[in-house]
Amino acid sequence: MVDLVASLQMIVGATNVINAPDDIAPYATDWRGRYSGAPLCVVRPNSTEEVSAALTACVAAGVAVVPQGGNTGLCGGATPIGGEVVLSLTRMNRVLSIDPENNSIAVEAGCTLQAVQEAAAQHGRLFPLSLAAEGSATIGGNLSTNAGGVQVLRYGNMRDLTLGIEVVLADGRVWSDMRALRKDNTGYALKHLFIGAEGTLGVITAATLKLFPQPSGRHVAWVAIASPAAAITLLARLRGALGDVVTGFELVSEAALKLVLQHIPGTRAPLAGDYEWHALIEVSEYQLVLAEALQRSLADALAVGEVLDATVAHSDAQATMLWHVRESISEAQRIEGVSIKHDVSVAVSQIPRFILDAELALHAQFPDLRIVCFGHIGDGNLHYNLSKADSGSNELFIGQSSTATRIVHDLIDSLGGSISAEHGIGQLKRDELKKYKSSLDLELMQTIKQSLDPRGLMNPGKVL
Amino acid sequence: MVDLVASLQMIVGATNVINAPDDIAPYATDWRGRYSGAPLCVVRPNSTEEVSAALTACVAAGVAVVPQGGNTGLCGGATPIGGEVVLSLTRMNRVLSIDPENNSIAVEAGCTLQAVQEAAAQHGRLFPLSLAAEGSATIGGNLSTNAGGVQVLRYGNMRDLTLGIEVVLADGRVWSDMRALRKDNTGYALKHLFIGAEGTLGVITAATLKLFPQPSGRHVAWVAIASPAAAITLLARLRGALGDVVTGFELVSEAALKLVLQHIPGTRAPLAGDYEWHALIEVSEYQLVLAEALQRSLADALAVGEVLDATVAHSDAQATMLWHVRESISEAQRIEGVSIKHDVSVAVSQIPRFILDAELALHAQFPDLRIVCFGHIGDGNLHYNLSKADSGSNELFIGQSSTATRIVHDLIDSLGGSISAEHGIGQLKRDELKKYKSSLDLELMQTIKQSLDPRGLMNPGKVL
Repeated sequence: MVDLVASLQMIVGATNVINAPDDIAPYATDWRGRYSGAPLCVVRPNSTEEVSAALTACVAAGVAVVPQGGNTGLCGGATPIGGEVVLSLTRMNRVLSIDPENNSIAVEAGCTLQAVQEAAAQHGRLFPLSLAAEGSATIGGNLSTNAGGVQVLRYGNMRDLTLGIEVVLADGRVWSDMRALRKDNTGYALKHLFIGAEGTLGVITAATLKLFPQPSGRHVAWVAIASPAAAITLLARLRGALGDVVTGFELVSEAALKLVLQHIPGTRAPLAGDYEWHALIEVSEYQLVLAEALQRSLADALAVGEVLDATVAHSDAQATMLWHVRESISEAQRIEGVSIKHDVSVAVSQIPRFILDAELALHAQFPDLRIVCFGHIGDGNLHYNLSKADSGSNELFIGQSSTATRIVHDLIDSLGGSISAEHGIGQLKRDELKKYKSSLDLELMQTIKQSLDPRGLMNPGKVL
Repeated sequence: MVDLVASLQMIVGATNVINAPDDIAPYATDWRGRYSGAPLCVVRPNSTEEVSAALTACVAAGVAVVPQGGNTGLCGGATPIGGEVVLSLTRMNRVLSIDPENNSIAVEAGCTLQAVQEAAAQHGRLFPLSLAAEGSATIGGNLSTNAGGVQVLRYGNMRDLTLGIEVVLADGRVWSDMRALRKDNTGYALKHLFIGAEGTLGVITAATLKLFPQPSGRHVAWVAIASPAAAITLLARLRGALGDVVTGFELVSEAALKLVLQHIPGTRAPLAGDYEWHALIEVSEYQLVLAEALQRSLADALAVGEVLDATVAHSDAQATMLWHVRESISEAQRIEGVSIKHDVSVAVSQIPRFILDAELALHAQFPDLRIVCFGHIGDGNLHYNLSKADSGSNELFIGQSSTATRIVHDLIDSLGGSISAEHGIGQLKRDELKKYKSSLDLELMQTIKQSLDPRGLMNPGKVL
């Protein structure tokens, strides 16, 4: 082990190998403070060559490797369990090149998402992946978890935004296809194996990403609807009238909104009156005429009772304020206390069914359960978080979390949904994965894993 | 072998096993008449269970299997080489279900593309994959070749349009994930292995596909531009002004247009005057106001010389006529005679570079070569076909096709492009693949292939 540390120091320089306990701590724990493990050390390479050499040294020593980016993951997938080398990509934060005519940008995996957005903006382009942690989350992490966020409805998730990647394999060889092509049918889609594999098949060191034209403006509205079913109907109306310009469509339950208004300074209820369900809508545009189309659609929806009330932002400041309400839900929950969180998806048409049935089943077991339900319902994706308002009862309830999760996940499964829409598996959902994947699914994944990482040294204890 | 045929007859019924030479012929040859082989027989199952049983029987007998749909592929990937069982999916042509609110449709792999488009339209939705062979091409084939077509710029290719698939593996087991989810991060992206694998990893028997809102209208324009570079600039202008509503952007060279006008009855030059380069533009919309935006953009482009002349269709009939000119190029070429065809892609920004450099290099070797160049340049994808106008010289030239292809493909490779943007590898480009893929690429593909088809019985002689 000492020999390995010495080898790593030779490869990246002594200052880029961390093993003092105080210095290691930030790398050894996940963002939510839920997982921690004691790695052998942290190595911080500055190039793909260094990554390759470091990985080769670890594998030769039989020591497992945990790739880590901004360490903002939500499932402990980038947290060591004990004894591994954490391979941090954050020094590899360069934008390599940008090609505005081809609408593509090549970056190192340690680039933050925000840095990529800014580089694109400087060239009049949009990199549309957008999520709360973007100031810290890195592209490598976004790729490894196939990150989603609030604009998937229009632009797709990280997988859809990736044209090429560079990966260091378990044996140290560098597999690279960084070409910025949209059409290429020359063999198996190998890149798709590594995207979303959460570091268990190789270390992503660079990627070529898709850019989009920058919208000339956006229109944001906040509406109240009677039910999730009404929200789905409204989404269909908007998409039929406005087409693919509907960029974001977020469901917000009353409970979620209340927590924000309670805990987050400077937020105001977008609408007067109490409503059980709200939706935040954003349409991006390249022509200002969409404002009228949006108003007209919402007026039609109001006229037939599909929408109960609505406000349309008349300035960017107002638009930002509406989004701030939605984006503050997680923080408000954190301040409020512990909750049992779920990140699920079903077919969009099944959203109302899930919300109804889940509430019934959960309240049968936990009569005063508070359900905080919100999310990207245009993608069929809900964040579904459970807790009790009284902290004493909540402590008891958290102790029974497995029962609650079983109810939620069984229902999701029966509706043909996913137990992890966005956040991935990591350590958090390994056991859950086994319950809801068929044995053939698991066997095929093991076969791929076995063929690409025969010694099981790539981020062990994660996913499978 | 007789035992195998008897087993297959037991599984699907005697009338669904074909071995009389006259009856076999259509299955034994590709659409272009370029490849043919004598299969052992053709089996035509009617269900996934029958596919599984048939595949199991073939593997048990050590006989290879060639999956085949509408047999419209362009690389011989669905044509037997000799002695295999052709497994035809065309009886499995049912639409299984459609979910308009979730914008998804589930179909058997033997459904034609046109049948899927029609089923979607009946529910006010659009299935946007669109290609010439859609009356015969089946979804299974579209998936196996990751079909593209004319609307990829806006809607993506088959891979982007697929939510779920069902595959029968080499060992007869059925791997299925037909859920209609847009957000699912639960393990490795196995479906992406099978999409574009050209039948060499398993037999796709069903798929769940994405639907879109139906546009309320479309706007089509035909423009003349001075050069491919001007076309790329125009595309950027349109996308900046109109956004993602640019659905199609097709480059058409003068030579291509001339062939159409010469060979295809009822076609007229869209513009008066002779121009070296043309572009066909389609924007889909959900509001009729886009007409003004399109006119304005083109007027601006004309004012600065980016566009030399333009016509905008004022009716659907006129729009159809403009598309007919573009869509007739392949037929016109077929009537004209043999040509050496290439289906290549580069970054959009490299299109002008490729066209210039390729012409220089080719004319240096073949002074009177006629280059017919056209295609989906919004995706960076060109169809690049070479021949000589004089049929005597052409025969000589065709004999030297490998020299010409070497020039084209070497140039494409040096520009970081793909030697097969859309059509896949099949038999046609196996040797080319070896030249332009790294040994690591090939090794990884072999590893995946080996792990999923250890006996090499899935469509041997294709791709790898």
